[in-house]
Amino acid sequence: MIIDCHGHYTTSPREHEAWRAAQIAALKDGTSPPPRPVITDEQIRDSIETGQLRIQRERGTDLTIFSPRAAGMGHHIGDATVSQYWSEICNDLIHRVCTLYPANFVGVCQLPQSPGVAPATCIGELERCVNDLGFIGCNLNPDPSGGHWSDPPLTDRFWYPLYEKMVELDVPAMIHVSGSCNPNFHATGAHYLNGDTTAFMQFLTSDIFKDFPTLKFIIPHGGGAVPYHWGRYRGIAQDLKRPPLGELLLKNVYFDTCVYHQAGIDLLTKVIPIENILFASEMVGAVKSIDPETGHYFDDTKRYIEAVPGLREGDKRKIYEENALGVYSRLKTKLSVSKASHAPV
Amino acid sequence: MIIDCHGHYTTSPREHEAWRAAQIAALKDGTSPPPRPVITDEQIRDSIETGQLRIQRERGTDLTIFSPRAAGMGHHIGDATVSQYWSEICNDLIHRVCTLYPANFVGVCQLPQSPGVAPATCIGELERCVNDLGFIGCNLNPDPSGGHWSDPPLTDRFWYPLYEKMVELDVPAMIHVSGSCNPNFHATGAHYLNGDTTAFMQFLTSDIFKDFPTLKFIIPHGGGAVPYHWGRYRGIAQDLKRPPLGELLLKNVYFDTCVYHQAGIDLLTKVIPIENILFASEMVGAVKSIDPETGHYFDDTKRYIEAVPGLREGDKRKIYEENALGVYSRLKTKLSVSKASHAPV
Repeated sequence: MIIDCHGHYTTSPREHEAWRAAQIAALKDGTSPPPRPVITDEQIRDSIETGQLRIQRERGTDLTIFSPRAAGMGHHIGDATVSQYWSEICNDLIHRVCTLYPANFVGVCQLPQSPGVAPATCIGELERCVNDLGFIGCNLNPDPSGGHWSDPPLTDRFWYPLYEKMVELDVPAMIHVSGSCNPNFHATGAHYLNGDTTAFMQFLTSDIFKDFPTLKFIIPHGGGAVPYHWGRYRGIAQDLKRPPLGELLLKNVYFDTCVYHQAGIDLLTKVIPIENILFASEMVGAVKSIDPETGHYFDDTKRYIEAVPGLREGDKRKIYEENALGVYSRLKTKLSVSKASHAPV
Repeated sequence: MIIDCHGHYTTSPREHEAWRAAQIAALKDGTSPPPRPVITDEQIRDSIETGQLRIQRERGTDLTIFSPRAAGMGHHIGDATVSQYWSEICNDLIHRVCTLYPANFVGVCQLPQSPGVAPATCIGELERCVNDLGFIGCNLNPDPSGGHWSDPPLTDRFWYPLYEKMVELDVPAMIHVSGSCNPNFHATGAHYLNGDTTAFMQFLTSDIFKDFPTLKFIIPHGGGAVPYHWGRYRGIAQDLKRPPLGELLLKNVYFDTCVYHQAGIDLLTKVIPIENILFASEMVGAVKSIDPETGHYFDDTKRYIEAVPGLREGDKRKIYEENALGVYSRLKTKLSVSKASHAPV
């Protein structure tokens, strides 16, 4: 089984994004947001079958851990109420996709974060998504300000109530910024990778995993700059008299494989323990076109994994499936239940 | 000849940093800064001969392109006048090192940047350093706010007067942030690499090199996250209908080799054209200890270059010397003059 742990609903029916545009317009005008968008099952099927599901089939992957469009979360827009409405609508839409295609998609939720607002306010939506909708994790934005980085680091006690709930529910978070409203940062080309690098270094300098030994984070986009600078991080940890990285954070921090060329995936699988790597492509996402150097889609990351020199079948199985089942413990339960219900009587 | 294009005076005599502390204290008290620090040649010799010069000899490198301590620039502290005083003192000290050891060190200056202040105000100090002190380049901070990223991107016309002067003087800039006053960003573990990644993406989305075809930038720390995500950048450029990266920016943008493990240097030299890579170690810098996995200093980057599989002698010569002489054109002139003056009569 091949699990892609990083997919966003970037192809959602246009009514969905139109509602968001109307919500923002209403915010500006000081009026009420419009009623919830009406989207039919057929529209959802169209968007998924011509998009993510087609690509799953073409590339031979099985299941996508699926969440709302990351750049669309826009936590910096409006206040916590605006964020709450929008998050509910986004998460409900993901739930509909997962209900229509239970074998192919499993949900991860957007949190109703807002700059300066305690992350504890996100607990209700997290519980609803996990307990009522069957989601298996959440996306956590380390910078709800959208490029101004005005909230405390992820290791501050500001975030702890949310972590307590994550631990209680046994769900991991993917650290994922949203769009950037700071003209210095291109979203997918700078802000995303900076968010990944920043979060890792916050973890390296803190004792968060002493406080939460079972808390789990996935750092996407291959860990930002981290694996490329793995020697730098090992050295900084050593200079700061921190424990070795394996002991300090590799029981809690995982990297995905959203790195869009062979040399990058070769490095990732060489320097990071295989147990800490989760297969992902982020399709349909940041890079949509075909690499003229290979003739294949840049984000067809399975091809790179397959071509890593000397990567054993057992290692691939870990990257494709086993590590994801370890990190997303609710996925394991879900799949066992689903298997049992399909077992011959 | 082996040129290390990235060294900071991190071992300066303590009177130097003490003056800075006194300047900051005076700023808080609203009093005048103290008189310039008195530092003897012997103190400078001590700090250099036990530090950078010893390491040059041990590692077999010849010349360090030398600038004030990057984390110490602190452009976010005080105003432009404070920055002007401090920059002059820092640059004068570098000049003394270069005068005492002309065969081993050549100067690159700190600019008196200040958040929100037009970079044009730095032109005077740049001219003084290049014309009067014989410096061959400058360090340019893309975020003088120290982690708040409140100034316009490097590609904004805000910066153009400084670029005009750089082109006129024919000096390159290394893009280098300073310390971070934003608790989200660890300086050497996050802010530095984020600055590198951010600058590259700014260049990718702009036509700055159409406006300044001979302007040259070095992106340090191996280019931040960029080479590891080279496929992502090639893909984003293609999706945005930008020219291929070679054409768009590789005549103007160079990467150094401050990547502190073998796998990182292997990747850098594999995906980035050899012509765009400049040897550097940043010693004595971000990582000071010995890698227990190799028994050698993390920042002994020459060892990694030597061990890159299949790297030809001609390629090494480019990385060690020829590329630096191309980028720092004033260094070439300086070395010719120096050779001529030492020629037998």
